[in-house]
Amino acid sequence: MADDLPISPLAPKKQPVLPPIAGVRLGAVEAGIKYRGRTDLAAIVFDEDVVCAGVFTKSACASAPVEWCRELLSGVENPRARTAIINSGNANAFTGKAGAEAARMSADAAAQVFDCKPENVLLASTGVIGEPLDASAFANHLQNIALAAENWDDAAKAIMTTDTYPKQVSRKVDLGDGEVTINGIAKGSGMIAPDMATMLAFLVTDAPISADLLQNELKSATDTTFNAITVDSDTSTSDTILAFATGKAGRSGSKIDPDLSKIPPAPLQNTNDPRLKAFRTAFHGVLHDLALLTVRDGEGATKLVEVRVEGAVSEPSAKRIAMSIANSPLVKTAIAGEDANWGRVVMAVGKAGEPADRDKLAIWFGDVRVAAEGARDPDYDEDTASAVMRGQEILLRVDIGLGNGAFTAWTCDLTKQYVAINGDYRS
Amino acid sequence: MADDLPISPLAPKKQPVLPPIAGVRLGAVEAGIKYRGRTDLAAIVFDEDVVCAGVFTKSACASAPVEWCRELLSGVENPRARTAIINSGNANAFTGKAGAEAARMSADAAAQVFDCKPENVLLASTGVIGEPLDASAFANHLQNIALAAENWDDAAKAIMTTDTYPKQVSRKVDLGDGEVTINGIAKGSGMIAPDMATMLAFLVTDAPISADLLQNELKSATDTTFNAITVDSDTSTSDTILAFATGKAGRSGSKIDPDLSKIPPAPLQNTNDPRLKAFRTAFHGVLHDLALLTVRDGEGATKLVEVRVEGAVSEPSAKRIAMSIANSPLVKTAIAGEDANWGRVVMAVGKAGEPADRDKLAIWFGDVRVAAEGARDPDYDEDTASAVMRGQEILLRVDIGLGNGAFTAWTCDLTKQYVAINGDYRS
Repeated sequence: MADDLPISPLAPKKQPVLPPIAGVRLGAVEAGIKYRGRTDLAAIVFDEDVVCAGVFTKSACASAPVEWCRELLSGVENPRARTAIINSGNANAFTGKAGAEAARMSADAAAQVFDCKPENVLLASTGVIGEPLDASAFANHLQNIALAAENWDDAAKAIMTTDTYPKQVSRKVDLGDGEVTINGIAKGSGMIAPDMATMLAFLVTDAPISADLLQNELKSATDTTFNAITVDSDTSTSDTILAFATGKAGRSGSKIDPDLSKIPPAPLQNTNDPRLKAFRTAFHGVLHDLALLTVRDGEGATKLVEVRVEGAVSEPSAKRIAMSIANSPLVKTAIAGEDANWGRVVMAVGKAGEPADRDKLAIWFGDVRVAAEGARDPDYDEDTASAVMRGQEILLRVDIGLGNGAFTAWTCDLTKQYVAINGDYRS
Repeated sequence: MADDLPISPLAPKKQPVLPPIAGVRLGAVEAGIKYRGRTDLAAIVFDEDVVCAGVFTKSACASAPVEWCRELLSGVENPRARTAIINSGNANAFTGKAGAEAARMSADAAAQVFDCKPENVLLASTGVIGEPLDASAFANHLQNIALAAENWDDAAKAIMTTDTYPKQVSRKVDLGDGEVTINGIAKGSGMIAPDMATMLAFLVTDAPISADLLQNELKSATDTTFNAITVDSDTSTSDTILAFATGKAGRSGSKIDPDLSKIPPAPLQNTNDPRLKAFRTAFHGVLHDLALLTVRDGEGATKLVEVRVEGAVSEPSAKRIAMSIANSPLVKTAIAGEDANWGRVVMAVGKAGEPADRDKLAIWFGDVRVAAEGARDPDYDEDTASAVMRGQEILLRVDIGLGNGAFTAWTCDLTKQYVAINGDYRS
C-alpha cells in the first residue's frame, strides 16, 4: 500500500462486502515487518482442518513460503489446512537457509496460537526480496489478531504492497441440492524496489468438495485467468494461489450461518458429478474477476486491454500469440498513446514464433476492422479507430485465419508511470 | 532521423570516416517518401556482380523487401548482387500484393539505372508499416544519385528513422597474404508510430570470399551480435543484414585503390583455410560494433548494459537466461533508476524456464558480488553497489553454477523517454 500512489483510474467504483463463509474467520495485525501504520500480517483460520489446493509460480528461484506450501500440498494424499498466514513487506525470497527457517518459525507460531500442527499451516509472503524475514515475534502478533467471519476486507488490505486498492470477489451458486459461496481476495501487482510484483490470491468456499477435485478446478481455472494476465511479462518468485473448502454450506455445524432450513449439498468428489459445472462456473468467475482486478491495478495502468486471438492452429498457439501481443512494449505504449497502431500488432503476431500467414490475418480494435488480407482494411478510417482507442477498456481482436484455436489474455497499457514506479524509487 | 530527439547520451563522441572499398560506390537522394528535407533513398552499387549473403527477421509477417531478398538469396547456388537499394520512411510491410509489386518496381528501376538484372538487386525498407510504397519515381531518383566510393556517411544517414546518429564501422585485417577491409553501416532502433523498430545493416568487404563462406560467417556472427542485443524484445517485420564481397582487395582491377604493391589475397573458399580465422575476427568485430551502436541508440537509453551469463547447462540455455534478464522491464527500469536491484535479476533468472538452482546462483554488478549461495552476499554494501549503477556502462554478470554454458547479451535501460517516444506520438 503505497500511500503516495494515486488509486488506479481502472479501480472498481465500489468495494464489495464479502459475506461470511461457514467455518472460517479472518484477521490482520500490524507486525511492523517493513511498513509503518498499517497491517501487514493476515491470518485465515478454519474451525477445523479443511480441504485445500494450491498453484504456484513456475520460477526456478521460488521463495521459501512457496517451497513450504509445495511440500505440504504435494507430500500427502488429502492435504488439509487449518490456517493460512500471509505477510506483506518481506517476500522471504532468495534468503537461503535462514529463509526456510523463518518459514518454519512462522508455521510453528501459527500452530501454537491456533492449536494445530505446523504441517496444517500454509504460508505466503510478498515484499522485499533478499532481506532475512524476522518471524520471531509472529506468535505474539498472531495472538493479537481479533478473528471474525466478517474480516475479509481487513485481510485483503493487509496483504497489499503497492496495490492501490484491495481486491475482493464473492459469488454464490446453487448446486441444485444446495447453495454454496466462494469468496476470494488477491493482491498484485504492486512494487516497491527492491520488491517485485507478486500476485497472491486466496479463495475460500463452503462447498463440500474433495481435495483432488479442488486442485483440478484450481489448476484449470488458473490457466485461463491468472495465467492469462500480464502487466509486464515478469514472473515473481512468490506467486501463490491457495483455495480452501470448509464443506459447511447449509450445515448445522456452521457457527456462522446455522440456518437449518438450507439443504447441505452432498460432497463433490468425482468429475462426472453434474453439479460440478455450476461450481466450476462460479469458481472460475471468482478467479477471473480477481485476475482482472489485478490487471486493473497494473503499475501505471490507464487502460484495460482484452486481447482475443481466434483462428490459430491450436489453443496453445493462440495463447502464445495472445501473450506475445499482451507483452509487447510497443503495443502497450501505443495503447497508452491512444494510437490505433495495428502495425505493432502485426509485428507481435509475427514474432510469436507460431504459425501465421500475413495474408490471412485480420485485426480489429473494438468493432473496427483495421487490417485484413495482408494489408490495411480498405475501409480503414483513422478517426473511427482513434475513437475506440480513447476508451478505458479496449478489445483487441486478431483472427489468424488458420484454424479453431482461441485464447483471451488481458493486459494494461505501458505508461511513464510504470517506469516511474519501478525506476525512480531507489532501494 | 527525428529532429526533435536529442542525440543519445551513449552516442560515440566522434563519427568515423569509412575508407573506400575497391569495387563499390554509394550515394543517397531525397525521394520525399515520408520525411522532408533529408535523404531517404540510398544505393550501394558494385562495379560488377559480387558475392552476397543475407540474414533476415524470423517474423512470420515479413515485409515485401525481406521476401524479395530471401527469394533471390535462397533460390540460386551462388547469389550475386549488383546493387542494394534501401529506403527509409516506408517499411513496405503488411502491404499485400501491392507491396510485392512495389518491391518488383524498385528492383526494375535499379536494374534500369544501374544496368543490371532485377534479380541482382537487393532491397531493404524501413519506416511506416501498412502504407503502400509508391516506387513509381524511384528510377528518376536513383538516376540523380551521385555515386562515390567515399559516400558511406551519406548512405548511413539516408537509412536512419528515429536513430539519433548514423552507425558506421570499419576494420582492416591482414590475412597473411594480403590486407582486406570490411565496412559496415546500420540503422536502428528508431521508431515513429506507426513505424516499428527495424534494424538494417549492410557490410561490404573487398575480401575474395565464396558466397557459401560469406553466408556461413554472416549467420554465425549474427548469432552473437545482432541476435544478442535487445532494446525492447520486439522483433521487426523488416530486420535485414546484407553482406557483400567485391574480392578486389589489392588487385589492379580496383579503380579505387590501384596500389599494385599490395598482394591480392587468394580466394577464401573453404572452411579449413587458416586465414579464415583472421577474417572472421574482423568481420565479427564489425557486426559486434554495429550491434552495440544500435543498442546505444536504443529508444530513450541512458545506460548500456552487458549481461554476461556463465555456468549454465549449455550455451542455448545461457542465451535464454541472458535474454530473459536483458528483456525484463523490471531489471531495465531498475537500471534506469540506478538501483542495484539484484532481486529482479533473480526473478529474471527464475522465469527463464531454464535449469537454475537458487542456492548455486551468484550475481555481480560490475566487480561487486551482490548475491551468492541463495542469499544476499554477506559482504554486500549498498553504497558500493550503487556506485557501480551510476556508471554509463554496466556489466551485469550471473553465474548459474551448473555447467559451462556462457552467453553475453547487450541491452539498454528502460526510461520514461522510451514510453514517450513510443506512446506520445500519435499516428
